[in-house]
This record gives sequence, structure tokens and C-alpha cells, in this order.
Amino acid sequence: MYRTHSNGELRLANVGQEVTLAGWVQKSRDKGFMIWVDLRDRYGITQLIFDEERTPKEMVEKAKTLGREFVIQITGEVIERVSKNKNIPTGEVEILVKKLDILNASKTPPFTIEDETDGGDELRMKYRYLDIRRNPVKDNLIFRSKVSIEVRKYLSDAGFIEVETPVLIKSTPEGARDFVVPSRMNEGQFYALPQSPQTFKQLLMVGGLDKYFQIVKCFRDEDLRADRQPEFTQIDCEMAFVEQEDILNAFEGLTRHLLSEVNGVEIAAFPRMTYDEAMKKYGNDKPDIRFGMEFGELNAVAQHKEFGVFNNAELVVGIAVPGGASYTRKEIDKLIEWVKRPQIGALGMVYVKCNEDGTFKSSVDKFYDQEDLAKWAAATGAKPGDLICVLSGGAHKVRAQLSALRMEMAERLGLRDPKVFAPLWVIDFPLLEWDEETERFHAMHHPFTSPKPEDMHLLDTDPGKVRANAYDLVLNGNEIGGGSIRIHDKETQALMLSHLGFTPEEAKEQFGFLMNAFEYGAPPHGGLAFGLDRLVAILGGQETIRDFIAFPKNNSGRDVMIDAPSTIDDEQLKELSLKLNLQ
Amino acid sequence: MYRTHSNGELRLANVGQEVTLAGWVQKSRDKGFMIWVDLRDRYGITQLIFDEERTPKEMVEKAKTLGREFVIQITGEVIERVSKNKNIPTGEVEILVKKLDILNASKTPPFTIEDETDGGDELRMKYRYLDIRRNPVKDNLIFRSKVSIEVRKYLSDAGFIEVETPVLIKSTPEGARDFVVPSRMNEGQFYALPQSPQTFKQLLMVGGLDKYFQIVKCFRDEDLRADRQPEFTQIDCEMAFVEQEDILNAFEGLTRHLLSEVNGVEIAAFPRMTYDEAMKKYGNDKPDIRFGMEFGELNAVAQHKEFGVFNNAELVVGIAVPGGASYTRKEIDKLIEWVKRPQIGALGMVYVKCNEDGTFKSSVDKFYDQEDLAKWAAATGAKPGDLICVLSGGAHKVRAQLSALRMEMAERLGLRDPKVFAPLWVIDFPLLEWDEETERFHAMHHPFTSPKPEDMHLLDTDPGKVRANAYDLVLNGNEIGGGSIRIHDKETQALMLSHLGFTPEEAKEQFGFLMNAFEYGAPPHGGLAFGLDRLVAILGGQETIRDFIAFPKNNSGRDVMIDAPSTIDDEQLKELSLKLNLQ
Repeated sequence: MYRTHSNGELRLANVGQEVTLAGWVQKSRDKGFMIWVDLRDRYGITQLIFDEERTPKEMVEKAKTLGREFVIQITGEVIERVSKNKNIPTGEVEILVKKLDILNASKTPPFTIEDETDGGDELRMKYRYLDIRRNPVKDNLIFRSKVSIEVRKYLSDAGFIEVETPVLIKSTPEGARDFVVPSRMNEGQFYALPQSPQTFKQLLMVGGLDKYFQIVKCFRDEDLRADRQPEFTQIDCEMAFVEQEDILNAFEGLTRHLLSEVNGVEIAAFPRMTYDEAMKKYGNDKPDIRFGMEFGELNAVAQHKEFGVFNNAELVVGIAVPGGASYTRKEIDKLIEWVKRPQIGALGMVYVKCNEDGTFKSSVDKFYDQEDLAKWAAATGAKPGDLICVLSGGAHKVRAQLSALRMEMAERLGLRDPKVFAPLWVIDFPLLEWDEETERFHAMHHPFTSPKPEDMHLLDTDPGKVRANAYDLVLNGNEIGGGSIRIHDKETQALMLSHLGFTPEEAKEQFGFLMNAFEYGAPPHGGLAFGLDRLVAILGGQETIRDFIAFPKNNSGRDVMIDAPSTIDDEQLKELSLKLNLQ
Repeated sequence: MYRTHSNGELRLANVGQEVTLAGWVQKSRDKGFMIWVDLRDRYGITQLIFDEERTPKEMVEKAKTLGREFVIQITGEVIERVSKNKNIPTGEVEILVKKLDILNASKTPPFTIEDETDGGDELRMKYRYLDIRRNPVKDNLIFRSKVSIEVRKYLSDAGFIEVETPVLIKSTPEGARDFVVPSRMNEGQFYALPQSPQTFKQLLMVGGLDKYFQIVKCFRDEDLRADRQPEFTQIDCEMAFVEQEDILNAFEGLTRHLLSEVNGVEIAAFPRMTYDEAMKKYGNDKPDIRFGMEFGELNAVAQHKEFGVFNNAELVVGIAVPGGASYTRKEIDKLIEWVKRPQIGALGMVYVKCNEDGTFKSSVDKFYDQEDLAKWAAATGAKPGDLICVLSGGAHKVRAQLSALRMEMAERLGLRDPKVFAPLWVIDFPLLEWDEETERFHAMHHPFTSPKPEDMHLLDTDPGKVRANAYDLVLNGNEIGGGSIRIHDKETQALMLSHLGFTPEEAKEQFGFLMNAFEYGAPPHGGLAFGLDRLVAILGGQETIRDFIAFPKNNSGRDVMIDAPSTIDDEQLKELSLKLNLQ
């Protein structure tokens, strides 16, 4: 037995006991006749004392050799501390050491193992195993584990069955983002790694499992935008004999349970908003509703004056920034520069200061009088002291620009409090979206999403208008989950695929197995998938998912520490190329 | 809402209620004026009744069109059945249908959806989504889910943190069995899929996580022996500051919990046996101890007589088959043929009938008298009525042969009862085993396993004699888990790798990241991994793991249903070959 107690559990009640502890040397203070050592493990810190009068001499000598992060085992007596440390749970006691063993030495670590470390990002990633010893990282990993087990307990108790679906799956020609895996057993052939277990979970519904879930790794071989990983984890769920309302209720229940259990936050019914409303009010299909600054559309009150920029715009739209009327001219100019940055892409910004005395001062006073501007204030909900920021242009683009500005202003104003949780269902997504590049419609969610029956008649005449039985769960401006009621009959699935540009042959080749299954009594079904990485980060009140992953990959998909992927050696290369029939 | 109740929950207490149910048509009986339909879902079966006098006429007409596996929704009144069915929980009631909707039709399924189906293995695999509707398969999947959640609850409650380790990892030249995954993001470079998260979990211990577990997919690209899958699932565990005893206690606790919770079987302390003892007593390092037939070594009592075969053998060893004395000459001849089959490979078998009157009749009466044979009986524990079967030859081979015979006889005698559970720890495995083919030592467990300190001095002089801190958990003759106390210092790890034939450069290239980590205060640590697939199958009282996997792969690694792997198309082939720098 290496230890009788952890370093987090000894209290005054243990005084007088002989204990054995093990852990890492956090720090030591050598006062000559006395040495104090902070001994650390996952559970806490316990102070050790080596005392020339009471500790065997050779132990004191050994203690003098201890460096940071040495792994030691000690036996001693729990005694009451003279000067107590109220900051840690073990702070009322210390251990008078009688025996010391060094279990393993340590080089001086490249950065301090403290909550606030002196190590830079790259160094901490290279030595991730040392970074994990730090409380913030360790606590994040424990937090992730807790969220996972709570999800599983809740769903199991609700009758969901966790089923493992294959990781080595059929590779489809569509799979531009699929990782492919050559098979040695079947020369010239390949598996793919799943982007999601979508079709498998649908087959499980056809198979009568009724309620399925899985916490599962998924894979996407594509350019890694900031804070995305080529392998990521989903909470994947599917239910049979359900309508949208059933799904929303089921997973609102799960999310509410997590907020309560993990964050201690009780939230009543989640608000719902249609996609159209979200776009109009927030310019975004995943609006952060922890704060207001809702969009005010100004076409009716700002057009048909002399200001050509607005008159020619499809949409004129503004937000009221609380307290913004006090911005200096320089500050406002900086804001205008901000919206004109290429990442945002606005051509300019009109602003109105709402003075405390009820008057207005705008950048377009030449075209608009006080009465006009009062209408703008009404439309954007601006109060005296606010700054109205107005953008104009094509509706789609200008909404995205103003949404970015809204988020930026909220950030600056401290309105994005990570301890506040504002969930939201966004529903009634469009079924299809037009892709400018390929000049065809794509499934907004995926090809298995069902159209709303009442919109089916538009599929031929105005496909962009067809709404889907699709929904997203948004938390604090992040999409944490999304799903849909699926198509469950062969004809509708074939129709859908043809609208997405599949020939009947291609449809059969790629999705024949699913459509065949639909012919043997497929029940109505639908589901939802949460992005676990994102969910955990938001519940954990942090920005980046990477902080909750033990061994994340960097932006080029390399493991931070072990430096995968690696170059393959010549022999394997030859072997692989044989498989590929290239030699 | 598709349903107010499941098909498994209505009872007499519900009589008089109006309910809505949905599910599959299990079967229907049309008596002309009355039609009965068995409606099935995951939760059970409820009988529906369509009655010309009480059901709207068009509903009766519609009911006549229902075929097997149609998906329907009905509304009706719960009434008491006249002739009750005591075999199902809902058998006292039926639903007088007032409204019927066909949610989806079904082709006639290719086999019956019954517990005992008429479908052959191949057909059931091709239509796995229909196979899953059958109770035996559905119950297996539910059982697997239950085992998984119980494992997680137990380990979480015991302070283990579930950490996800990467699936896309560094590819090592050693990885002959690794699947490799070309990376698009890093041309000419590859990931590998892990055979286990071994090194990652060791890094987590270096990182201070103290207790780790993960239920995790692992991958092996090799010839699939019977009932193995290229992707399989492990319960992977690791603990810091532990000795072998701590690990054995921790996971004996988990296994005992599962047996109790899942099987309702209470088992006291698990017996332990050294590898040497297991080999001597059972000829096998994973002995099935549900029954006796322990080996009796006969060298002392059978050699140095006139029987040359025995005199020249390294080992003469026998087992007593209970009741075997009654075998006819023909039956015994068949048994001799059985051990001489190429799969077993014995050259012959000597037998002794232990007659009820205390006399013996053997196939070698010419060489051995009654007194000799009495000693054989004593050595093998044979009682009157038993048959002693004796094999001889090289110790290693003959033990394997007799072990196979022992298992075969137990099978024939019905001693391998799947409802009886006999766990066993096998400890003190050899560190290294000699590989005839490559003429060098291989790590019996893996290169990270620590040698017993007291055997370290043999590493140079007699490496085959060095015992490891390694252990297996055996259940009913199957290895369900295995692990070891790991090496946690750089010097021992380097020494171990050099004994395994690695040059210092190779060692650094492949395991440098781990040995470097050991220099920064690595704690003593060890762990264990369970094969979840096998564990679930044995707890479930069944032979093959495939029956507990939703979408298993066949013997050539192809998905039973969707037929992965698939041939990749030309364009992707070209793209891949570019990555491989072959064009």
C-alpha cells in the first residue's frame, strides 16, 4: 500500500494518527532546522514537516535533496499546525515526517505546476502530461467526465439504450471529408471513419430499439477552423414514434438536468424561436440571448429620403448599444474601422447618439431630422445614452455583419457572462440552402431530414422556401445540438436525394441500404446530436473546447504532444501502395 | 403524440381507459367478424381486437390489409380479455380498436421476427435491422448497454475519471497490426488507429489523474480468427500509487459488482493461481475452473517401466474423466481419433478404465500392473467409474493437447454451464516469451510491463525465467481482462526495450515521448483492460461476442449489412496516391 490517505482528506480529527502519504513535491521551504514540503496529488495538498529534533537525521538530509515534482512517499504523524492555512481543506494539520522514500526524481519542469503558470501555450501543449497536473486542466478533465456520466445516467434512466455503432464503415464517394482507412484484409479496399453514426442510428430505429443514444467519436478530415478537432465527440440520440415536440421535450429535459446537476442552475422551459425570427432579430441562427440589442429593421423609416446608400439597400438594420452615446469620435471611428475589417466586410456604418436630453446626433444629420431619428430609436429600442449602429446592404450579408458587431459590443460590455446560461430552441430551419459555388441546393441539415408536410408542395416550385422538421439547441450563442425528424419512407427519401442532385443510380449506390430498410416497416423517428466538446466547454464556463480535451490536436491536426500524424516509413509505404494497386 | 402507452405496460387496472398505441404487427388472425392483431414494440406485445359490431367498418376493412411488420397506430379502449394469456404481462387485456392508421407498410420480411426464427445466419446478418427486432438480439443489445452503464457507475463512484484518448494517433513502424489513416491536412503523412490507449493512459498517470478509465474502441488490422472483430471495445483502466494487490482488489470489486448487479450472482473472494500452477494443473493460462479434471503428472509413476513412449517423453500427464469407465471400445477409439486430429495434434492416447470394483483395465496392461495403475488413479484423482486419459510428449505441447481434451470432455459432460460463474486471477506471468519464428524474446504482455524486482538479476542470464508483475482475470475459461504494474522509470524502460531487440535509436524514436515523461516525476502505476465484448458475452451466458454487437463485421472484416469496406473510386484513389507521393 503506497498510502493510507490522499493528500486532500486529513483534518483536525486525524491528529495523532500515523499515516502514509504519496504524491508530488509542490514546493519545499528549507529553514535549516526545519523543512516544510507541500505534498500534492489529484485530491489536494498536505503540508509535511521535517524537524531536526523530531525527524530522523537521514530523513532530514534526504528531504533537503527534494526538488519540485519529485514523487515521494512519507510516513508520519498527523499534528495540528501552529499557523493554520484557511485556504485549503487540509490547512489545519501537517504531517511530522518519520520516514521518507523518493519514489521517482524529476527534472526541473519546464513551467511551474501552478494554477497560474509561467508556461506559454506551446510549451504547455508539448508537455501536456505536466499541464494536466495543474488544477485548471485537471478540473476540466474531471468536469468533462462528470458531464458524460450524468448524460449517461439521465438517458439510461429515461430508457435509452447505448449502442455502439461501427467506426470502420463503408466509404462513400460523397465523403469528401471522410478519413479513409485502407484494409489489409481486403486489398484495394477501404473503410471510412464516420462523420456521425446517422444512418446506423436510423437503422436501429427500423430495428425497433425505440430509444438509442451513444457518446461517440466522429471524424472529419478538413481544414481545421479555430477550435475544431479532426476527431470530436457527439452525444448521439434517436427516438422512434416521435414528433418534434417529443424530441424537444426529451432533450430539454437532459439539458436542464445537466445545468442543474453540474452547474447548480435551474432553468424553466426553454424559449423557442423560428429560424426566420432568429435571423431577423439577431442576424444569426444561433443567437446569444443572454442580452438584448435586438435588431431593428429601419427600411420603413430610413428609406426614401435623400440618403442613396440606404435607398439602394435591400436591408437597413440597426442595434442600440447600451451607454454608447458617451463614445468619443475616436472610439466611434475605431468601431467603424472594426466593421470594415475584411473578416466583417461592412462598407461603412451609420451611427446615432441618443443624448440623455432626448435629442439625437447622427452621422447622417444631413438627411434625417430629429423626428426621423426618434423613429430609429423606437425601432431599435434605443434609450437615452445609447448608441444606434446602423448597417445596410444585401439582407443576408448585412445581418451577418450586424450580428458580429452585436457580439463584439456585448463582449466589450461584459454581457457574455459565462456563469449565465440562456438556452434556446431554434426551429423551422429551411430544408435546403443554395450553394453559390456549386450552383445547386444542399441539405441544410442532412439528406435524411424530413420536410414539413405542409411545405411539400413547394419542393418543385420554390425549394428554398420549404421548411424542415429540423431544430437546433443553442446555448449562449453556440449551437450545442441539432437534429431533425427523419424521412422514414423510401419514396420521400428518393425524392429528396433527387432534389439534391443524386441520380437514381447514385442514390441507390450510396443510400440503397437505408431505403431498402425503409421498406420493411420503418417507424417515424427523429433525433438529435449534441457536440460534447462544445457542450462541456460552455457548461464549464470557458471559451475553447481544447481546454477540456486531454490530448487535443493543434490546428494542423497534429497531436499536441506525440506529434501525430507521422511520416510512414518506406516499407509501409510500399506495402500500402501495393494495396492501392499502384505498383 | 404517437402513443399514450408502450405495448408492454397495460394491465387490468387500465380497463376502461382510452389509449393510443403504436408498433409493429407481429401477427393477425382474421375470423371474419373479428380480427385480432398482436402489436409489438421494444417493450412488449399488446393484443388488439377489431370487432364488426363495435369497430367502425372502415377500420375493420383496413385491418384486413395489415401484413406482418406493418407499422400502425391505433386508438381504442382497454377491455378485459375473455381468454387470458398468462404468458405475457399484458395478457389479461386487449384493446378494442376504434381508429387505425397505417404509419408504414412492410414487405414480407425475409425471415420470421420470432425468438426462434426460420432465418439462416447469413440472411439475418444481411437484414440485421430486422434481426434486431427479435427478442434474443434486442435483449442482448440492452444487456450490453446495462453492463456498460454499470461499469461506468461503479468506476465513477470509486473515483475513476473517464478520459477520452485520441483515436487518430502516431503511427509507429512497429505497428504491423495498425490500421493507418492518410491525412489530407498533412500530405504524405498518416495517423494510426490505436490497438489500445496504453501509452496515453500511462501519460495520464504521469499527469496525476490518479484513477483513469475509459470504455473505448480499439483496432487491429489482422487476420480475423473466429469471433474476433477488427474493431473491438475495451474497458481500459489505470491507477497510480498502486501495487498489484490494489489493482486486483479494485477490479475484483468491479467484476463482483457486475456479477451481482447484472447476473444476481454473489461471489466471495476470487481464487488466485500463478501462471506456473495454471499450466501444471490445467495446461492453460486461462483455466476453466467450473469443473475439476485437474492434471495429474505421471512421470514418477509411469516412467522407467518397459513402455518406451512414456520413458522418452518430457511429460506424462493425465486427467480423470468422470463416469468415463463406461465408454465402449468404439467410443474410446473415437476419443483417440479426436486427440489425433491435426488441430489437437497428439500422437496417441493411453487410457485406464477405473472399474467400479476397484480394478483397472488399461490400454497398456502389458507394461503396468494394478498397483501401478492405482498410483495413476491417485495422481489424477480418478474414482471408480472414471476414465483416465493420458498423453505424453514435450511438456508445452502435451499440456495444450490435454487441456483441449479436458475442455472437450467437460463440454460433452455438460460441465460448462453458462449460468455458473467461476472467476480466477492468474498471476506471475513470465515477462518474456521466446518466439521460435523470429528467434528472439517478445514481451508476453507488452513492453511497458515491469519485471518482478526479485527476478531482475535473471534478465541477463535467464530472461525466460523472469516473472512479470502481470495478471489476467479469467472467467469460465476465458481471459476477460489483463494488466500489469508498469515500468515507471526511464532506465528500466530502456533496458526492457533493449532486451526486446530495440536499438537505442529505435527505442527513442518510438517510445521517446513516454521515457521523457518518466523523467518528470512519474508515479508508480499499473492497470488493467477488460475486453468488453467477451465480458458481455460471458455474463450474458452466450458463446459468441457477435451476438452482442449491433453491426458486427464478418470474418473478412466486412460489415454484415452495409458491406464495408468498399472499393474506393478512381478519383479518390488518385488523390490518395498523391498523398503517398507515388505519382
